Amino acid sequence: MAKEITARSENYSQWYNDIVRKAGLADNSPVKGCMIVKPHGFAIWEKMKAALDSDFKRTGHVNAYFPLFIPKSFLSKEAQHVEGFAKECAVVTHHRLMNDVNGNGVVVDPSAKLEEELIVRPTSETIIWDTYRNWIQSYRDLPLLINQWANVVRWEMRTRAFLRTTEFLWQEGHTAHATREEAVAEADLIHEIYARFAEDVMAMPVIKGKKTANERFAGAEETLTIEALMQDGKALQAGTSHFLGQNFARAFDVKYLNDSNKEEYVWATSWGVSTRLVGGLIMTHADDDGLILPPKLAPIQVAIIPIPKPNDEIDHVASKIKSELEELDISVVYDSDAKKRPGFKFAEHEMKGVPIRIGIGKRDLEQNQIEIARRDTKEKKLIPLDKGVGYIQNLLDEMQSDIFNKARTYRDDHITMADNMESFKEIIEDKGGFVYAHWDGTTESELKIKELTKATIRCIPNDMDSDKGSCILTGEPSSKRVLFAKAY
Amino acid sequence: MAKEITARSENYSQWYNDIVRKAGLADNSPVKGCMIVKPHGFAIWEKMKAALDSDFKRTGHVNAYFPLFIPKSFLSKEAQHVEGFAKECAVVTHHRLMNDVNGNGVVVDPSAKLEEELIVRPTSETIIWDTYRNWIQSYRDLPLLINQWANVVRWEMRTRAFLRTTEFLWQEGHTAHATREEAVAEADLIHEIYARFAEDVMAMPVIKGKKTANERFAGAEETLTIEALMQDGKALQAGTSHFLGQNFARAFDVKYLNDSNKEEYVWATSWGVSTRLVGGLIMTHADDDGLILPPKLAPIQVAIIPIPKPNDEIDHVASKIKSELEELDISVVYDSDAKKRPGFKFAEHEMKGVPIRIGIGKRDLEQNQIEIARRDTKEKKLIPLDKGVGYIQNLLDEMQSDIFNKARTYRDDHITMADNMESFKEIIEDKGGFVYAHWDGTTESELKIKELTKATIRCIPNDMDSDKGSCILTGEPSSKRVLFAKAY
Repeated sequence: MAKEITARSENYSQWYNDIVRKAGLADNSPVKGCMIVKPHGFAIWEKMKAALDSDFKRTGHVNAYFPLFIPKSFLSKEAQHVEGFAKECAVVTHHRLMNDVNGNGVVVDPSAKLEEELIVRPTSETIIWDTYRNWIQSYRDLPLLINQWANVVRWEMRTRAFLRTTEFLWQEGHTAHATREEAVAEADLIHEIYARFAEDVMAMPVIKGKKTANERFAGAEETLTIEALMQDGKALQAGTSHFLGQNFARAFDVKYLNDSNKEEYVWATSWGVSTRLVGGLIMTHADDDGLILPPKLAPIQVAIIPIPKPNDEIDHVASKIKSELEELDISVVYDSDAKKRPGFKFAEHEMKGVPIRIGIGKRDLEQNQIEIARRDTKEKKLIPLDKGVGYIQNLLDEMQSDIFNKARTYRDDHITMADNMESFKEIIEDKGGFVYAHWDGTTESELKIKELTKATIRCIPNDMDSDKGSCILTGEPSSKRVLFAKAY
Repeated sequence: MAKEITARSENYSQWYNDIVRKAGLADNSPVKGCMIVKPHGFAIWEKMKAALDSDFKRTGHVNAYFPLFIPKSFLSKEAQHVEGFAKECAVVTHHRLMNDVNGNGVVVDPSAKLEEELIVRPTSETIIWDTYRNWIQSYRDLPLLINQWANVVRWEMRTRAFLRTTEFLWQEGHTAHATREEAVAEADLIHEIYARFAEDVMAMPVIKGKKTANERFAGAEETLTIEALMQDGKALQAGTSHFLGQNFARAFDVKYLNDSNKEEYVWATSWGVSTRLVGGLIMTHADDDGLILPPKLAPIQVAIIPIPKPNDEIDHVASKIKSELEELDISVVYDSDAKKRPGFKFAEHEMKGVPIRIGIGKRDLEQNQIEIARRDTKEKKLIPLDKGVGYIQNLLDEMQSDIFNKARTYRDDHITMADNMESFKEIIEDKGGFVYAHWDGTTESELKIKELTKATIRCIPNDMDSDKGSCILTGEPSSKRVLFAKAY
């Protein structure tokens, strides 16, 4: 089975597509650019959702649901937003089909044309702020801390499963505050939640920082981002949190009476992560034999496989281990299908990234032991039967941090400092990865560097000490390095 | 606050709208027919989802996600399906907007017309069965037991929050089986899951049965339904499970090799419940003072209110009770906002349907007691402080079954037998509710009765003994009564 996967070294992009397909994560659909999220892929997304949703709720946020459709006119209300979002999107113009008079199935009923076209939401700031106008009168109505889990559509020309699809699933938070300080603090809080989730749950190391003006969300005053490094040396923007200032409140006339009875515009944030994270997870951890899942996101954490075939004794031992593990909230399957050979099952669970495999064989049982294999390092150990469950419980924790550490080492090995354009170009082209370099702070230089090298400024990192230098392009003074990379 | 609600006796429909609005369940949106599900309404839906999702998973189903859009041509592939679903729906014809040359915001880019129009899914049988063709080759690939949680769109002329909206949220299960028997058993299993969920979790009594040919899902061979009775004597179809035979397999050419290596069409089911259930919940239990929630679906089960104002001692007692209840997985708020009067808080929690209210007053505390009030009966009791938590734990269970029993009594009081057309009409017009009557089994009579009385056959009930009689319309012989009602 693993043989069907193209090696990363041979064709990285094909490797990615192979994993997506063979691990049962997603499938192409008959609708251009839209993917089908298959059960294994969806189960991973469900685990991501559950972890994030609990973080959001723990910090006082509530979920709601706003309409899929946005009246066309809404998109033009915030000047920058329209430039960023009102272009490539799905437009609903009619609300009825009718039988073709020539008997060729159904056709659009021309008499059912909408007065105003509806846009399938590419993001929901506009319809939500239009609503907040009715929900917010006084400071007592603030803050509003609302999130929604939803599908959104952005018409994309080149799509890749999870990383860039026309329709994708995400959460979008939209909060309203009485003061600038509160809104800034909210954007920071979410930035921190995203970073912790990426590192602690996804085992994916990230660099936190803010976007340059040029890379900001359309309509934001500040965009905070977490940036991860994929195994091909390209960056993935994994989650963004925007401080929107009063831009949407002005555009949709959302004011509140403050405690001195004065009318003021409301302050806003928005923030989101999407099914793109599943793509990031794959490209951070998977290898040439298939998916590798950090235990915290593995829908099945342990697979028990009888060798060569199940019998009464093996069944008994397996179900005992299974129920003991389940009592510790560890998810287990006992793969006892006698029609498949153990080797086939090994490859299948390996492909799907199941963290731990237990082999139970007749001969091992005679010696009161079982074989425990970990997916990440492929290391196998014979463990005494009565120590198995405890060993697995520890191993899952160990794997979670080992997988993170491995990814961090890879990432750190692919961070380079560049002090002039020549070496910058060379690093970007040959080694790839993250490059810290000085930049003069102008959009002009940023775009010129992108034109010359295809590298973009991923962020102005939070954790970067001042370090006087000069812009690699213009030689103008710079007080701090920024993070460059080619990106997805 | 409660004064703002219209009494049921005065205007039932306005009462419903008032509850939806004042209890913070949903709001109108600027998009015709689409509602905004507000945080309290969404939290109830989340609890419904969690309960159902766990039922589905326990019985071997997995979740996946299929595209929002369906190519227009797919809808004409199943002959009956196209009649039922391909009519009032949202049609995407373009994929780009552009700036208006006259500066009037954005307009549809005429050059970005789609070759084939896309339909926003009204239900997903077609796109899913088109996919199953690729996923199913042999009997080893069966059964496929897949569910998705999604939004769907059916263009509706007359909409009402939750009950009938253009966009709604739902789950749709789509299963594929090797034999007719397995598919029939699956449809039955889900029918049973829906009925148990309605009664045990929603505390909403239902009658199980199958639909007449005329009322079946478009493309189904059999539609099983659960029917509930609302407080205005109208029926609500609360969940349907369809045995689809081989109709979709034929339409999308989905065959499998059976174990004797012979090609056969696959057997199918589909089934769904939607946010309509929130409407059903309201109309089953709410009263003229607001929402009443069965404890199993209450996002907040207990509200603690200091009387008249919080002080150190009250704070201390409240947080002790709160943490003890939370340890029992009971959700609690301590509403200590000193700016609001207790009476205002009482009305607010009453409106939102919080099952239990604890009042903690200075004087009561001197006597080591607290006041515990239940929302459904409004009964209040003084309970010794050290017995409070145990009392509440029992009370929640008691309320869950009391609320169900009250609804069942109402329902049973509104079931009438009618033996001729005259009394049938009278009952439907005056008393309303469910009416059991004989029917000759023809669509013609069914439609005629509907025309004369607006009552439809809700189902051919499972639990109805044979009882020879004659059709109330034609006098033709009938062997079993069917269930009639006016319906939502």
